Amino acid sequence: MSTQLEAARAGRVTPAMRAAAAREPVTPEALRDAVARGHAVVPANPAHRAAQPVAVGRVVRTKINANIGRSTESSSLDEELEKLGMAVEAGADFVMDLSVGPGAAAIRRALLEHSPAPLGTVPLYEAFSHAGGRVDALTPDLLLEVIRVQAEEGVDFMTLHAGLLSRHIDLALQRRMGIVSRGGAILAQWMRHHGAENPLYTAWDAVMTICREHDVTVSLGDGLRPGCLADAGDAAQFAELDVAGELVRQCRARDVQIMVEGPGHVPFDQIQAHMEREQRVCDGAPFYVLGPVVCDIAPGYDHITSCIGATAAAFHGAALLCYVTPAEHLGLPCPGDVRDGVVAYRIAAHAADVARGLPGARDADDAMADARAAFDWERQFALAIDGKTARTRYEHARRAAGVADHCSMCGREFCAVRISHALQQQGAP
Amino acid sequence: MSTQLEAARAGRVTPAMRAAAAREPVTPEALRDAVARGHAVVPANPAHRAAQPVAVGRVVRTKINANIGRSTESSSLDEELEKLGMAVEAGADFVMDLSVGPGAAAIRRALLEHSPAPLGTVPLYEAFSHAGGRVDALTPDLLLEVIRVQAEEGVDFMTLHAGLLSRHIDLALQRRMGIVSRGGAILAQWMRHHGAENPLYTAWDAVMTICREHDVTVSLGDGLRPGCLADAGDAAQFAELDVAGELVRQCRARDVQIMVEGPGHVPFDQIQAHMEREQRVCDGAPFYVLGPVVCDIAPGYDHITSCIGATAAAFHGAALLCYVTPAEHLGLPCPGDVRDGVVAYRIAAHAADVARGLPGARDADDAMADARAAFDWERQFALAIDGKTARTRYEHARRAAGVADHCSMCGREFCAVRISHALQQQGAP
Repeated sequence: MSTQLEAARAGRVTPAMRAAAAREPVTPEALRDAVARGHAVVPANPAHRAAQPVAVGRVVRTKINANIGRSTESSSLDEELEKLGMAVEAGADFVMDLSVGPGAAAIRRALLEHSPAPLGTVPLYEAFSHAGGRVDALTPDLLLEVIRVQAEEGVDFMTLHAGLLSRHIDLALQRRMGIVSRGGAILAQWMRHHGAENPLYTAWDAVMTICREHDVTVSLGDGLRPGCLADAGDAAQFAELDVAGELVRQCRARDVQIMVEGPGHVPFDQIQAHMEREQRVCDGAPFYVLGPVVCDIAPGYDHITSCIGATAAAFHGAALLCYVTPAEHLGLPCPGDVRDGVVAYRIAAHAADVARGLPGARDADDAMADARAAFDWERQFALAIDGKTARTRYEHARRAAGVADHCSMCGREFCAVRISHALQQQGAP
Repeated sequence: MSTQLEAARAGRVTPAMRAAAAREPVTPEALRDAVARGHAVVPANPAHRAAQPVAVGRVVRTKINANIGRSTESSSLDEELEKLGMAVEAGADFVMDLSVGPGAAAIRRALLEHSPAPLGTVPLYEAFSHAGGRVDALTPDLLLEVIRVQAEEGVDFMTLHAGLLSRHIDLALQRRMGIVSRGGAILAQWMRHHGAENPLYTAWDAVMTICREHDVTVSLGDGLRPGCLADAGDAAQFAELDVAGELVRQCRARDVQIMVEGPGHVPFDQIQAHMEREQRVCDGAPFYVLGPVVCDIAPGYDHITSCIGATAAAFHGAALLCYVTPAEHLGLPCPGDVRDGVVAYRIAAHAADVARGLPGARDADDAMADARAAFDWERQFALAIDGKTARTRYEHARRAAGVADHCSMCGREFCAVRISHALQQQGAP
C-alpha cells in the first residue's frame, strides 16, 4: 500500500484526494500537488472504514478538530459517543479521542467504528495508562506497541511529542506555568526518571515504519506549548519547534504525511509572527493550533478567548484549529460544551477563510445578507452555522414581544432595513 | 461652565480627569494632554449626578459600551433597569439607552438616575417617536429641542448622524444591504421626503451650542455603516467618514468633545486598514466601533463573531467597543444576553490591551497563571472576568466526576501542572 504522500509524489490522484477535493474550492490535481509538496495532508487510515476523507492545508478550507475522551475519573463510553455525535452534527471536521485510564482502548474502538470524521489520538496516553500511570513502567517498546495497535485499528492521525528533547526541559521549567501539555509533562518526567532521551525521538525510525505502513498522519505534538500569555514565544517553545522542522523533513523522506501542532496561549499581537515562523521552520507543513487563547482571565469563556486567537491564526497561516470549550481550565467538557466549542471554531475558521480570500468563502455570507434584506427568516436559519439556536432565539424574542410578522429588535417603524427598502423602491428623487 | 476639552486646553486637570485617571495606567496630566489634543474624551455631563467619570482614548484601557433600551414593541422600564444593573455588574464602562416609542423618555430619566456608568442616547429616536414615526412630522426644531432636553437632563454622550449627507444616499442604496443604521435610515428617509439636507448637518452650529453648554460629548454616528461583509469599505462608508473628519474639526473648534462611530460588519483582513483610515481622517479622535462582526452566518452567536473583530479593532486603533449580544439580528436582547455581550467584550478589550502593550494590562493574566500553577481555585475565581460562572462550571464538573480536591479535566495522574511542579521541585539531574 502507498501513502497519500507517496501517491501524490508519483502524480496519482487517489480516491481520498478526489473525495476530499469535491468539497473544496480546489481541483483534485491542485490538492494532489499540495499533498506532494507536504503543504496539505489527507489523514485517511484505510482501516478506518467509516471515515470520509478530509484535507488539511492552506489551499483548502480551514478545518476544525474537536477533542473528546474521558479523563481518569470522569465520563463513560456512552457519554463519549454522545460527544462524538454532537461534534460531528455541529460540524467538526476531525475528532481526537484523548481518553486516558481504564477503558480508553474500548472507547477508541467504539469511536473509530462510529466516526465519519477522521480520528486522532495521543498514543502516549494509552501507553501511560497501561503502565499504571508510572513512568518507571513505561517502556519504549510499550509505546511502540500501542502506536502499532492503534495504527492497525484505524487511527487516522497521531499526536507524537517527538520534538521535546531532554535539553529543553530546564528551559520549560523556568517558565511561569512550566509544562502544560499532558504528553509533554509525562515525557519530561520519563526522561528525567530514566536519564534518557525522549523515546519517541530515539525510536522515530520505528515510528515512521508503522505510520508508513498504515498511512497514519503524524501530528507533531508541542509538548512545550505556552500555558499562559507570559510564557508565549519563549526559548523552550522555539527550541522544540526547531526539532519539529527536522522531524518534518525526516517524515517526508519516509513518505509519511505530517502536520505540526502549535500553541496554546499567545497574546494577539504575537500570533502572526508565530504562524510565519512555524511555516518557515517546518517548510509549509500544515499548522495545527490549539486556540490560541489571547486572554488568561476568562475561565468559563475560553471558547471565546481562544476563537479570537484561532481566527488570527488561521488568517496568518494555520490550517487546522483545535477547538477549546467553555470547560477549559475548569473540568472535562460535557456534550453541550462540545457543541459550543465546535460552533465557536466554525465561526473562527469561516471568518479566516473569508479574510484570506479563499474562493467562494463569502458566498454564504452574501446569501445571508440577501436573506436578511428580504426578511426571509427560513432562509436565514438554513444558512446559519447553528440554525436551530438562531430559530429558538428569534421565536423566543417574538413571543416576548407579542409580534407575529417581524423581528422585535427595532420594531416596525424603526426598522432600518424596511425603510432602506422603501427608499430603494422609490428611486432617486 | 467649561467643558473638559476647554479645561484641558487651558492646562487644567479637572476632578473628572483626576477620577478617571485614577483607574488607568496614566497620570492625570497625561490624560489632560490627550483630552486637549482631542485624542481622549471624558463624557461627563455635570447634570448626571450618579455617574463616575470614565476616559476613552488610546492612552487608557479600551472601554466597552452596552446598548440597552426598549423597542417599540418589547420590554418595559423594569426590564431596562434590570438590564442596566446586569450591564454595570458585568463590567460595562458605558451604557447607551436606545429606547424608542412611548415611554422612552421615562426610561431615559430612570436610567440616568440609576446609572453609575456615563449614559449615551440617540436623540433622533426620541424625536422620531414624538413625531409618531412619521418623517413629515419630524422637524429640525423638534430634533434640537429633544437634544436640548436630553442635555439638560444629564445625557453624557449623544450619537448624532450628522455626517450622512443627501449625496450619499444613492451610494448606500446600491449596496447589498442598503442602510442598516436606524438613525441613518430615518435621516435618509427625511432628506428624500423633504428634499433637504440632513438637519443635524445644517443645524450643526446650534447642536454645538447645546453640547458646549452641557459638556455633552458628541458620538458621531455612522449612518452608512456596512450591514454585511460585502458592503464593508465601500464608497458610501468612506464618503460619510470624510464628512466626519470635517465635523471633528468643527467640534474641537467649539470646545466640544467628540468621538467617531464605526462599523459594523467588516471582514477580518480589512479591520486594520479601517482603523488606520479613521484615525487619519479624524485626526486621532477616539474611534467607537460596533463589533465589527467578521462572519455573517452565525446568528445567535454574534457576541462571538463580533468580539473577534472588536479585538482586532481595539488592537489596531479603536478606543471604545460597542458590544453586540447573542440576540443581534434576531430580536431585542434580554438581561442574560446583556451579560453575555458584556463578558465577551471585556475579553476583547482586555486581549487588545495586552496585545498593544498597555502598561500593567497583563498583570491579571500573570496572576491567573500563578493561581493556576498553585491550584488556587479561589484566587482564580477572584481574578476571573466572570468568577461566578467559572466557579459554577468547576463545581459542576467536579461533582460529575466525584472528585473532591482537583480538577476533572485530566485527572490526577495525567495532570501536566502537577507533574511539571514535581519536576521543578526535583531540580536538574
